[in-house]
Amino acid sequence: MVDLYYWPGIQGRGEFVRLLLEDAGTPYRDVARGPDGIKKMRRFLDGKEAGLRPLAPPFVVVDDLVVGQTAEILSFLGRRVGLVPEDDAARLAAHQIQLTISDVVVEAHDVHHPIASSLYYDDQKPEALRRSGHFRKERMPKYLGWLEDISARGGGHPVGGVHTYVDNSIFQIVEGLRYAFPNTMKSLEPSIPTLVAIHDRVRERPGIAAYLASKRRLPFNTQGIFRHYPELDR
Amino acid sequence: MVDLYYWPGIQGRGEFVRLLLEDAGTPYRDVARGPDGIKKMRRFLDGKEAGLRPLAPPFVVVDDLVVGQTAEILSFLGRRVGLVPEDDAARLAAHQIQLTISDVVVEAHDVHHPIASSLYYDDQKPEALRRSGHFRKERMPKYLGWLEDISARGGGHPVGGVHTYVDNSIFQIVEGLRYAFPNTMKSLEPSIPTLVAIHDRVRERPGIAAYLASKRRLPFNTQGIFRHYPELDR
Repeated sequence: MVDLYYWPGIQGRGEFVRLLLEDAGTPYRDVARGPDGIKKMRRFLDGKEAGLRPLAPPFVVVDDLVVGQTAEILSFLGRRVGLVPEDDAARLAAHQIQLTISDVVVEAHDVHHPIASSLYYDDQKPEALRRSGHFRKERMPKYLGWLEDISARGGGHPVGGVHTYVDNSIFQIVEGLRYAFPNTMKSLEPSIPTLVAIHDRVRERPGIAAYLASKRRLPFNTQGIFRHYPELDR
Repeated sequence: MVDLYYWPGIQGRGEFVRLLLEDAGTPYRDVARGPDGIKKMRRFLDGKEAGLRPLAPPFVVVDDLVVGQTAEILSFLGRRVGLVPEDDAARLAAHQIQLTISDVVVEAHDVHHPIASSLYYDDQKPEALRRSGHFRKERMPKYLGWLEDISARGGGHPVGGVHTYVDNSIFQIVEGLRYAFPNTMKSLEPSIPTLVAIHDRVRERPGIAAYLASKRRLPFNTQGIFRHYPELDR
């Protein structure tokens, strides 16, 4: 049993972990969405539980281990559930790509929060408008172009020629960027056919398809990491 | 032999890798600082060499493996050179803390580049001024407070009660923040005695002391990640 702790109400970084667990059919509890969930999560963040105190969610608790940082959680669980090959080169590659996906996620967040996470979007709108242009014109093509290149070279999968948790994360990046930046994605997608194919294939995997059709999959919204503000996608 | 590739002229993210290698006494080449160095680095970034194409430096080449992403490099090399305990819990903890240090590094960079890495600091100065206040008042206390807490609980070391590569990274974070934000650090340091003690202990380690006294250690400057602009530290 895996206990996942993440903010209820948003997909956010927790979604990468949920996709891995749902794809693998691993039993898990999404603790913070249950009774007294936030209170239980707070105990870890406040250092009142055993194990390494995490700075922020998501984190998972498995046996006696508390594991935080999204990419590390995926590397750790991916190996346990068989969603990454056993050899060192493949595991290192998967983790390296996932860490780079984490970098995109930070930047996608900072488009709407370029000054401070503690401020509202409305309090940093001029700066967000300015940052969004650079994100759409420079950063999205750079990251997506790199992911496309390594996936195309890998014969349609970024790691080892087989489906791994990284394919699921690419699905989520495509979903998130389509929601937040539909116009930009419309113009970029012809140049990333391998990523679109990965996205479409992941969506049809039995565990993922069932998950997406369930209430466990929260809709995107303007509280999460990927946010749709039309003015940032012009 | 380890081949390290990173931008010459700055400490940047490459410095975390250099500190590990120098502490362990591992033979390595700092390739991009040698003849035709940038050209050799470009071949990897352009996908013209075998192995996973890295998106950005730093990356290391060991045997046939190309390993990128600073925290992953440290996890990979740390195990090889014995700068992290062998047990899973310690290795996961070290990596999780290092990943959180990577998050501080991103934020320390974005203080002076809140809009785009492709613009000069002077082109985003009003935004930088605004972001710096939040970084100094909210983010630095949060990150340093967390590092202090887990290190104090660990009996003076963040991982497993022993010196690991994470101690070296804490040294570098303290050094970098002191250079970039001397006033802020002056007021924060009384609340982080364990981190200051780690910093002082690391500085005296034979490999580190020799490195810091050598020309291999580049000085901090306003091209790197940590930059001193007095107006951002008021």
